[in-house]
Amino acid sequence: MADAANPPIEEVIATEWNRDFEKISEDLCPSLARWDRAPQRLVTFSPDQESYFGIRPSSSKDTIDSLPTLAWGRGDEFVLDFGVHMVGFVSFKLDCIGTNQDAPCRLRLTFGESPLDVTMPMDDVKTWISTAWLPDEVINIDMCPETVVLPRRYSFRFLRVQVIDTSPKFKVSFSDVKCECVSAIGQDHELDAIEFENPLLRDIDHCSISTLRDCMQTVFEDGPRRDRRLWSGDLRLQALANYSTLRDFSLIKRCIFQFAAVIRVDGSLPACIFEKPKLAPSSDYIVDYDALFGAIVLDYVVESGDVAAGQALWPTILTCTKRSLSHINPETHVFETERTDLWKFLDWAPTLDRNAGSHGVLLYCLKAINKLATALGKESPHLEMVEKMTAAATHFITKENVFISGPDAQISYASAAWLVLAEAFPEETARTALLNTIAHPDAVKPLTPYLWHHVCDALVTVGCYEKCLEIINSYWGGMIRAGADTFWECYDPEDPRASPYGDVRNNSFCHAWSCTPTYLLRGKLLDAAKGKVAGKITMGQLDNRWIQRSID
Amino acid sequence: MADAANPPIEEVIATEWNRDFEKISEDLCPSLARWDRAPQRLVTFSPDQESYFGIRPSSSKDTIDSLPTLAWGRGDEFVLDFGVHMVGFVSFKLDCIGTNQDAPCRLRLTFGESPLDVTMPMDDVKTWISTAWLPDEVINIDMCPETVVLPRRYSFRFLRVQVIDTSPKFKVSFSDVKCECVSAIGQDHELDAIEFENPLLRDIDHCSISTLRDCMQTVFEDGPRRDRRLWSGDLRLQALANYSTLRDFSLIKRCIFQFAAVIRVDGSLPACIFEKPKLAPSSDYIVDYDALFGAIVLDYVVESGDVAAGQALWPTILTCTKRSLSHINPETHVFETERTDLWKFLDWAPTLDRNAGSHGVLLYCLKAINKLATALGKESPHLEMVEKMTAAATHFITKENVFISGPDAQISYASAAWLVLAEAFPEETARTALLNTIAHPDAVKPLTPYLWHHVCDALVTVGCYEKCLEIINSYWGGMIRAGADTFWECYDPEDPRASPYGDVRNNSFCHAWSCTPTYLLRGKLLDAAKGKVAGKITMGQLDNRWIQRSID
Repeated sequence: MADAANPPIEEVIATEWNRDFEKISEDLCPSLARWDRAPQRLVTFSPDQESYFGIRPSSSKDTIDSLPTLAWGRGDEFVLDFGVHMVGFVSFKLDCIGTNQDAPCRLRLTFGESPLDVTMPMDDVKTWISTAWLPDEVINIDMCPETVVLPRRYSFRFLRVQVIDTSPKFKVSFSDVKCECVSAIGQDHELDAIEFENPLLRDIDHCSISTLRDCMQTVFEDGPRRDRRLWSGDLRLQALANYSTLRDFSLIKRCIFQFAAVIRVDGSLPACIFEKPKLAPSSDYIVDYDALFGAIVLDYVVESGDVAAGQALWPTILTCTKRSLSHINPETHVFETERTDLWKFLDWAPTLDRNAGSHGVLLYCLKAINKLATALGKESPHLEMVEKMTAAATHFITKENVFISGPDAQISYASAAWLVLAEAFPEETARTALLNTIAHPDAVKPLTPYLWHHVCDALVTVGCYEKCLEIINSYWGGMIRAGADTFWECYDPEDPRASPYGDVRNNSFCHAWSCTPTYLLRGKLLDAAKGKVAGKITMGQLDNRWIQRSID
Repeated sequence: MADAANPPIEEVIATEWNRDFEKISEDLCPSLARWDRAPQRLVTFSPDQESYFGIRPSSSKDTIDSLPTLAWGRGDEFVLDFGVHMVGFVSFKLDCIGTNQDAPCRLRLTFGESPLDVTMPMDDVKTWISTAWLPDEVINIDMCPETVVLPRRYSFRFLRVQVIDTSPKFKVSFSDVKCECVSAIGQDHELDAIEFENPLLRDIDHCSISTLRDCMQTVFEDGPRRDRRLWSGDLRLQALANYSTLRDFSLIKRCIFQFAAVIRVDGSLPACIFEKPKLAPSSDYIVDYDALFGAIVLDYVVESGDVAAGQALWPTILTCTKRSLSHINPETHVFETERTDLWKFLDWAPTLDRNAGSHGVLLYCLKAINKLATALGKESPHLEMVEKMTAAATHFITKENVFISGPDAQISYASAAWLVLAEAFPEETARTALLNTIAHPDAVKPLTPYLWHHVCDALVTVGCYEKCLEIINSYWGGMIRAGADTFWECYDPEDPRASPYGDVRNNSFCHAWSCTPTYLLRGKLLDAAKGKVAGKITMGQLDNRWIQRSID
C-alpha cells in the first residue's frame, strides 16, 4: 500500500491519544535479530526473451572468492548477488590498488530487489511519489583502506557497484562485503516444514514466508524498501500469514495496540501509522481499512487466545465501523460510496466501482465483530445491521447470478470477492456467482495482490480449491517464474514495467500484502495442494535452501 | 599543483625510509584549531556582464534569520553564503514541514569556492583528473528531525542546497547550519596588522593570508579542496608567506622532515607526500622541486634559527640536487633538459622550453645550499659548480639582453625569472634583461600563480618594485575584483573557465602557491606599497572584517 495518487481530500481529524495502549505497544517492541550474509556470486545480466523482465542473471566468469583481487577504475561496474532477498545494513572494505590514492573514490551503489533495479539507470525516473525512494546512493571515500559502513537500511538481493571515478593513478578493490540482516524473526526461528508435491507450490510457500519475514521489523512494514510503514489492510494479511507460519503473536499485538493508541476523536482509526521518530498517525484514512480493525482483532484473539487484549480493545472496535456505517442508506441498507468523499480502497484498479465491494467488506467486518463479542462474552452489537445488510446484498446480484456494482452494473472481482467473504448469500449461490463473475469477459480484474488474495480467500470460502490453486499457480507462480525471491507490490503478467507510481523503479518487490499464499496453502488448501507436514525447519535452513536454488 | 596531464614516465624508485625523521615529523603534528561559522545570508546569482564570472551574488529577499521558517520541496533550491572561505565540517538540522514524512528526503549539496561551483551543474564534467573531486554530495535522510553531520571535510564559501525530492506530503526546513572550521591556525592567532593606502593591496594581503591559513592543516596542503596534499614547490612558497605573517615554524619543520623521511634510495626526494592514512611518498617526481629542498631548509634555518634541524638534514641536502645536476653538460655546464625524461615543471605552460629556467632553478638552489653550509659552519659543497654554471648562464642571454631558451631561442617569463633569481648576471644586466623579456611581445607568459610569484620575486630582486606592484595589482588584484576570498590555483584574466584539467569545476580556488603577495608586500615591497605596521590583529578579526566586506 502506498499513498493514493489522488485520494479524496481528507479533513484533518485530531488524534485522541490512548497512552495506555501506546505503552502496551512500546513494551512489545522487539529486539531485532541480526545476522550477516555475504554475496554468493558476481553476476551479469544478458537478454533473454523467455524471461519476464527480458534479462536473466548468470554467474560471471570471476568467482566471488576472487573479488578482493579485482581492481576497478573509472567507469567499471559489477553486480553482486546475495542469492536471497534481505533487509539490512551493508558494509565493505575498500582498498586502493595503485601507486597512490591521489583523489577520492566516487561510487554509485544500487540495491536491487529486481533485475531491473540493477540494470536500468536511476536517472530520469518519472514517478509521482518521491524519487527519494530510489535505491541508489552516491558516496565518496577520501582515503583507503576504509571500512565503508552505510548508515541506511536497504532491502535487496542484488548490489550494483558502479565506480564513477578513481583517478589515473589508482583503482579500488572490494572485500568483506556483507549485509547485517535484520528482522523480528531470527535465523533460528522454527516453523512447520511443509512439503508440496508440486515444487512451484513449495517455492510459493517459501517465498511468502520470506516476504513476511523481511517485512517483520519493529512493526509489520508494508514493504521494507517502500514505504516501510504499518498499514492496517496490510497488517491483516501479514497477521494471517504469520498465524500459519512464524506465529509471532507479540508483534501483531504491538501493531494492533499502535492503531488503537492513535484513535481519532470521532472513534475512527487512521489507515497507516508512523512508528518513528515517535508513534504518529498518518493523515491517510481508508474506510475499508478502518472497519477491518475488528476483523484483525478477532483473528488475533482466536489465534493467540489473548482474550484480555480483546476486552481492552472492545471500545475501539465499537467505533471503528462508524464511518463505514455512515455510508449505509437508512432505507435500503445498501452501502453507497457517494455518501462521502472518503477513500474506499479495495484495489488500485482505477475504474473499479466500489459500492458492492464496500458493502461486502463492511458486512464481513460487522460479522467478525459479532463473533468477537461472543468470544468475549459480550452482546453482539451488529446483529440487526448484519441481517439488514445481508438482505440488502441482493441489490448487488443479478438474476443470472453475477455480482454487479454501481449505476452501470459493473462486474468485478472486487465485488464478488468481498460479497462472498461476507457470506451474504447461501454458499451455492455465492459459489456460482463468484465463478460466473470470474469467468465473465467484462469483469474488472484485480491490479494488486491484495485483491487477488481476497479473490482466493473467497474461492476457498466456497470450496473452490482447484480454482484457487490455479490462480495461485498462475499469479504468484508467475512471479516465481519471473525470478521473485519475495512477492511484489504489484504484478502485471503482461507488463514487467507496470507500476501504480508511473515507473517500475519505484515499485516495491517485497510487499507484505502479497504474502498470503502460505496462509491459504497451509490452511484449507493443504490437502488439495498435496502438502504434508514434514517436521520443523528454521528460517536459516529455508534461506540456505533458497540460496542454493537461486544460484544453481 | 596537481598531477601532470602527461608527465614523463617515471621509474619507480624505492624509498629509503628515515624513521628518525618520520618520528620528528609525527611529534610536530598540530592539534587543529576548531571554530564554528554560520552562514551570513541567502544569496541569488544574477547575470552581470561586468563581473569576471558573468554572474554576481546578491542578498536574497529572505534573510538568513528566516531560514528555519522556510519550507523546501521537490526541485527547490537555495544558496547559503558564509561570507568567507573556510575549510571544515558541515552540519545542519533537517526538519519535516507537513503532515507526515512519508518518504526519505534526497538532497544535493554543492560546496562552492567560486560562484561557478554553485551555479553550474556538476554532471557531465569533462576532466582528465578524477571527477571524484567535484564538490557535490547526494544524501538521503530517512527520518526527520535529524541533525545531519557530513563526515567529509569541505572547502567552500557558498553552499548550494538542492532538494531533489521530498514527497507531496511534506517539505523540509533547515536550521542550525554551521561549519566547524579547521586549521592549524586558530582564530586567536595574532599577526602584524599592516595597513596599505591602496585598499586593493590590503585585500590582496588579506586574501593571501586567508589562502595560507586554509591550506594549513596537519600539513601545508596545496589546496584544501584539491589535492589536499603536500608538494615541495608549494611548501616553499607557503613557508615564505608564513614567515611574513603567521610564523608557525613547527608546521614547516614537520613538513620538511616528512620529505626527508621519504628520501629515495638514490638520494632524491619525491615532489609530493601523502600524509594519510600513513606517511607515504607520491610517485610524482619533479627535478626542480627536488633541488628546491635545499632552499626550503635554508629559509627555515634563517627564519627560525633552528640550526640543529639544518645539521640533521645536511646529508639529505647533499643528495637532493643530484638528479638535477645530472642534467648539466660536463663540458659546457649548461642545463640540458633532454638528458633525462624526468619531469621539469616551472609552470603549466605547455610550450615552455625549460632549459634556461631549469638552469636558473638549479643555480639558485646550489647557492642556497652554499649559504646554508656557511650558516651551519660547513664547507660550501657547490662553489665550483656555481661558478661554472654562472659563467655558462651567458648561454641563455642574447647580446640584445633578452633571456632565451632552447633550440628556438624561446623567450619566456620562466627563463627570465629563474635566471634573475639565481643572480647569474650583474644586477643591471639582469634587470634590463628581465624587463626586456617581460616587454617582449613573443614572451611565453606564466599560466600559474606559481610562476607569477617567481616573476614578481625576480622583479623585487633587481629593485623593480613598481613593476612588481603593477603585476600584483593586475594579476592577484584581478582575482580580488573577480570576487576571490582566497587565491586560486589558476587565473586567466581572459577566460573565467580556463582550467589545466579540462573543466573549471575541477579547479581549486584556494591554492597555496598563489599566497605569496603577502610575503612580497610585507617584505621588500612594504615601502613602495605604502604599507604601515599598525599593531597586531587576530585571524578572527581579519575574518570578521572580510565577512563585512563580502556581504555589504
